Amino acid sequence: MTERSRVAAEFDLIERIRRRAAVRDDVVLGIGDDAAIVQVPAGKQLVIAADTLNRGIHFPENTAPADIGWKALAVNLSDLAAMGAEPAWCTLSLSLPAGDMEWVDAFLDGFLELATRHRIALIGGDTTRGPLSVSVTVHGFVAPGRALRRGGACVGDDVWVTGTLGEAAAALLQWRGGAVVDPALRARLDRPTPRVAVGMRLGAVAHACIDISDGLLVDLQHICVASEVGGEVELESLPASPQLIAAFDTQRRLAAQATGGDDYELCFTAPPAMRYAVEDIAIETRTPITRIGRIVAGRGVRALSADGSEWTAPTAGFVHFA
Amino acid sequence: MTERSRVAAEFDLIERIRRRAAVRDDVVLGIGDDAAIVQVPAGKQLVIAADTLNRGIHFPENTAPADIGWKALAVNLSDLAAMGAEPAWCTLSLSLPAGDMEWVDAFLDGFLELATRHRIALIGGDTTRGPLSVSVTVHGFVAPGRALRRGGACVGDDVWVTGTLGEAAAALLQWRGGAVVDPALRARLDRPTPRVAVGMRLGAVAHACIDISDGLLVDLQHICVASEVGGEVELESLPASPQLIAAFDTQRRLAAQATGGDDYELCFTAPPAMRYAVEDIAIETRTPITRIGRIVAGRGVRALSADGSEWTAPTAGFVHFA
Repeated sequence: MTERSRVAAEFDLIERIRRRAAVRDDVVLGIGDDAAIVQVPAGKQLVIAADTLNRGIHFPENTAPADIGWKALAVNLSDLAAMGAEPAWCTLSLSLPAGDMEWVDAFLDGFLELATRHRIALIGGDTTRGPLSVSVTVHGFVAPGRALRRGGACVGDDVWVTGTLGEAAAALLQWRGGAVVDPALRARLDRPTPRVAVGMRLGAVAHACIDISDGLLVDLQHICVASEVGGEVELESLPASPQLIAAFDTQRRLAAQATGGDDYELCFTAPPAMRYAVEDIAIETRTPITRIGRIVAGRGVRALSADGSEWTAPTAGFVHFA
Repeated sequence: MTERSRVAAEFDLIERIRRRAAVRDDVVLGIGDDAAIVQVPAGKQLVIAADTLNRGIHFPENTAPADIGWKALAVNLSDLAAMGAEPAWCTLSLSLPAGDMEWVDAFLDGFLELATRHRIALIGGDTTRGPLSVSVTVHGFVAPGRALRRGGACVGDDVWVTGTLGEAAAALLQWRGGAVVDPALRARLDRPTPRVAVGMRLGAVAHACIDISDGLLVDLQHICVASEVGGEVELESLPASPQLIAAFDTQRRLAAQATGGDDYELCFTAPPAMRYAVEDIAIETRTPITRIGRIVAGRGVRALSADGSEWTAPTAGFVHFA
């Protein structure tokens, strides 16, 4: 491509994205200049997270472009949810091997479908040639002092988790093994549900929160390290979908749930006095929230089997895409 | 790598970056949680830009890691400069083929050297496996209504440009041709100077502004389209460094200056009444600023030779990295 046609193609692509991006009253200047200008509401702090998805690393090669668009935004919204923040704006840096407009339109279908659900406006970014890679930066608001952090867990807290665990890892395992992939499991891998509404309600309820991207035990460990406490998880209480139960024997299912990753559910801790408050949030947001363990004195996270013995994760098979 | 060692390696990498990142009073929570929390000053609007560099596309394969770090931040700071914004915070998404700590340290040397100069704090992001790619999002402040945009140019305005033009393109041309690359030219390709101090002073002076990434004529055209005006540039007045003059004959030099791109200088328009004000800014910031043309009625940008005839860019040779 000549310089002129390359610039023209990028301009077309940006114009295409600009036309489809939603507006918000607090966006002073959106896509189309050297940068965007926005107005943070008085009395709010700004929460910022950035996450990248690369082909073959964060999603299988055969992932549909609309699903890549959805997931690229979802994993970032999940970080806002884990902070208890209200989504506001995002930027998108899209590297593409070729300027394939059909691909971009499909990608935007998924990206903007999720953006619309959470009223987050796409305000800028760039498009460039390169191996397929999607970098998103998201911005949201919290009231000062109300953000959820990893470091606030207290001994005696309950440990809770939203939704169900292990389906994304199970889909990946089926796909890698060459098996037929259950569509319900694959949907959980391709279109994770960021728990934004739950996160926004947890500010006055939870002591600590994280989203599960690396696997429940690893991510709960992040909370425990930051909080200088230990954790115990009862394996039998981990929430499982019917599809996961049907697809795997118990040991493989438990491994997927405890260590699989890519769930993008929230794991949080809250004092026992907040159990009713948590149940209210579950009802209000129509989101299953399950109590799975407790914060204890000491260090490290232990997974306990039904008989109270410590469970050790199988060493192979659950390397996720990341 | 097993899942556990992969997570540990990423954690080490993030910890390594966290230890080296500067702090600012307005960063409530920096690197290490699901997201960062910052406080925008009362009465300011927030300016946000995002730009990605991919190996082999935006920089030659043999670019030193410290230079990649510098350039990844510089091109983003240049967008803030083009808006007249004061830099505040940035996020960094780094995709790397392997977790090479030496490479990361060298990359951070360049990135943080420039960050320190402009008091911009690295507050978050992610590291992941993938082809080498660097995505940066920058945040800065402007007073409401004071941002520089592309759309404000008026007929009769002067057109100005900071620094000198064409050296980055010249270095790329020498490198691609297999010639010995002049170190001074190569330094301009690898370590562009974002004109932040100039941009911050232009708010009350300039009508329109853009940074030159695609080439002077193409970028001035962006101003003209957004402002619904035309532009004229006097080729003989384009500022050239001694190294560029020494390395190229006149026609090739002019082509590099007018169309080369990758300069990351500012191009802006201002009314003739502001000539003294522009000269004051040049002195205060110790930055050459040169008047190179004017905004006229009509559409399109014309480049004029010394005899007043219209000049046409050579069609080959100046495809830049982007």
